[in-house]
Amino acid sequence: MVEAIGIDLGGTKISAARVDGEGRILARKKVDTRAEEGAAAVIKRIVDLAASMKTPSVRAVGIGSPGQIDHEKGLLAGEAVNIPGARRLDICSPVRDELKVPCFADNDGNVAAMAEAWIGAGRGEKVVLMLTLGTGIGGGAVIEGAVYRGAKNFVAEFGHMSVEVEGRICPCGNRGCLERYASASAVARSACERLRVIPPPDSVLMAMCGGDPSAVTAKMVCDAARGGDALASGVFDEACLYLGVGIGNLINIFNPSCVVVGGGMSLAGDILFSRIHKVLNAGRAYPPIMAAAKVVPAELGEDSGVIGAAKVALDAADRRDPGARV
Amino acid sequence: MVEAIGIDLGGTKISAARVDGEGRILARKKVDTRAEEGAAAVIKRIVDLAASMKTPSVRAVGIGSPGQIDHEKGLLAGEAVNIPGARRLDICSPVRDELKVPCFADNDGNVAAMAEAWIGAGRGEKVVLMLTLGTGIGGGAVIEGAVYRGAKNFVAEFGHMSVEVEGRICPCGNRGCLERYASASAVARSACERLRVIPPPDSVLMAMCGGDPSAVTAKMVCDAARGGDALASGVFDEACLYLGVGIGNLINIFNPSCVVVGGGMSLAGDILFSRIHKVLNAGRAYPPIMAAAKVVPAELGEDSGVIGAAKVALDAADRRDPGARV
Repeated sequence: MVEAIGIDLGGTKISAARVDGEGRILARKKVDTRAEEGAAAVIKRIVDLAASMKTPSVRAVGIGSPGQIDHEKGLLAGEAVNIPGARRLDICSPVRDELKVPCFADNDGNVAAMAEAWIGAGRGEKVVLMLTLGTGIGGGAVIEGAVYRGAKNFVAEFGHMSVEVEGRICPCGNRGCLERYASASAVARSACERLRVIPPPDSVLMAMCGGDPSAVTAKMVCDAARGGDALASGVFDEACLYLGVGIGNLINIFNPSCVVVGGGMSLAGDILFSRIHKVLNAGRAYPPIMAAAKVVPAELGEDSGVIGAAKVALDAADRRDPGARV
Repeated sequence: MVEAIGIDLGGTKISAARVDGEGRILARKKVDTRAEEGAAAVIKRIVDLAASMKTPSVRAVGIGSPGQIDHEKGLLAGEAVNIPGARRLDICSPVRDELKVPCFADNDGNVAAMAEAWIGAGRGEKVVLMLTLGTGIGGGAVIEGAVYRGAKNFVAEFGHMSVEVEGRICPCGNRGCLERYASASAVARSACERLRVIPPPDSVLMAMCGGDPSAVTAKMVCDAARGGDALASGVFDEACLYLGVGIGNLINIFNPSCVVVGGGMSLAGDILFSRIHKVLNAGRAYPPIMAAAKVVPAELGEDSGVIGAAKVALDAADRRDPGARV
């Protein structure tokens, strides 16, 4: 059976997996990125990692990375997000030359969406949108099995949709961006600020963070909200309102069949999704369009990076050379 | 040369044109819709209109209409917006049976976007979004030459993107929808309200509307703003801020190469587009993604309905029967 190697180029780790044509992971490896050693060293580590996992069945290699990726040319097109100082870096040719198989790159948001659309929470769905709730809010869209890449390979920036014209300032230059209200970082920040301004006398959340508001995490806020802590519930409800409004906008704009919500915060489960659904069903998505969409948690966790990169590579290899898959 | 008949099914008029394979209009006709006579009578008028324009070169008929349109089946899928009382109305089979050529239907926002992407302001562009500023804000997206139809044929509802979580109530059930702030109707309504609350002593706008604020139109507001009227400028600036934020969101989400702004209000020209660009360039769209997008006025005016319907029909006929085009 055909196989591909999927690589997830992160800021601290490079993860790789050998994946078969049905999305099963057959082998895994992980090495440190050590970006401070420069682009050439990082590329060598990627090549060595891929070479060490190659079998005769491996048909292609896919690399997922943050930033603007030129999928056609295999370039980190703008500044290479995880390799400081590199611009328009060709990460695919060295792999291709060494392993003698095609190599393709794509944005990490796109490959995560592709993985969920392929064998995860969005499998079998015609239009899959994915939001990843982390430091920011990542995005990706898969339409009829193909990654949507826009005109110039910028990823769908769902987190930088303004939902408050005069809202919170965002480092991107905009105001009111969704990720200022509903990312895991925003949830932790909101809780921290509220704990500082009016520390409640018997706050579970304050106990969880050991009395240090700056140590609060989104997970603590979820847990404390689940336990009934008033301050945490207020923070969490606010984030879910914004998330519901943002997802409602995407439903009205895209008429998706499935919206997958991933990232660590999605592990909060029902406490998160019941609130999002309540907001959506209160008119924040237009009811007939909402009726065609399901909003569900991601299923693949961190594996979406390597699985999606492998799938993007398999599909691209098939398109370039349709007869070669055996 | 191959030709198609494009039909624009409006609430008061049915417009039709015979269009050639390069988008030139060869003939036009228009009849009253008279929807009060019922669906069968309206369909007969569409059939007769199309039949009266048919030549041996006509390869297909396309019908654009508001609402959810099942393009594959040729149905007005939900409630037929311009034919009260009709549901899941098949408007294509009667045309096909009478004229002996394929007939296809699509949403009016989609066909307008298709026309502009084909031979209008978005020609040659990879990803074209269109917003039509009228009573509401219509939307449509054409990606690499194909209309984006979502999972269930709902049109891209750009006007129902909330940009104020606790903003103005919209009849759709949401709050803060873009069209509550930036449609032609919203501009007229805002001006009317302000004139009523604090009628300025020497308002050009008040003179334009003959002293009756409820008679103010968006065109009057544009004209008065251009002439320096303070109240009109304030209203117009506010609409442009919201429009800029909304378009900025769409640029961040879609990475389009072109955003076409149409509808009567787009005729305001530079006074509108200079303000939108100022908002976008102030960070409301992420600068590198903004650099890949142009934001321009529509070029085809009301003809986009018939031209786009003809193009959608030609393309669909080609897909179904690739050898038949001669």
